[in-house]
Amino acid sequence: MQNKNYKEDFLLKFGENFGKIRRSKSLSFRSLSQKCDIDYADLNKIERGKRNITLTTIIELARGLDIHARELFDFSFTLKDLEK
Amino acid sequence: MQNKNYKEDFLLKFGENFGKIRRSKSLSFRSLSQKCDIDYADLNKIERGKRNITLTTIIELARGLDIHARELFDFSFTLKDLEK
Repeated sequence: MQNKNYKEDFLLKFGENFGKIRRSKSLSFRSLSQKCDIDYADLNKIERGKRNITLTTIIELARGLDIHARELFDFSFTLKDLEK
Repeated sequence: MQNKNYKEDFLLKFGENFGKIRRSKSLSFRSLSQKCDIDYADLNKIERGKRNITLTTIIELARGLDIHARELFDFSFTLKDLEK
């Protein structure tokens, strides 16, 4: 992982993982937005790594997807190659 | 879990878990704040469930604690008893 802004990378990786889970449940943005308090346009931006969402939005995503919030962070992301 | 505001509960449970990890690594708020870009007073509020932090703060906490962000969500939290 180049030493690009790791925070941007984290948002992108989170979005990719969120998209993978959403598709695995065959949920469109519109159908997911009806299961939680998040607008479908925002869901789209979250998936593209364009939203630095908060804990309360994270629990809303988990509620809509019917999963534990932990699963939203089940992706590989190492900070090892960054100097502290 | 009473049907109290589940979002507040989630922030409290996240804070409790974060505190457990921090203490398991024998890190004070001050020493942890030197390992990541988060002020020690904010760390204290996060631990008391008083901060609705964002994804970029989550990766900062993980960086400071030298863990994967997923571990910050390793606590039990079920939404099952809420009607959808």
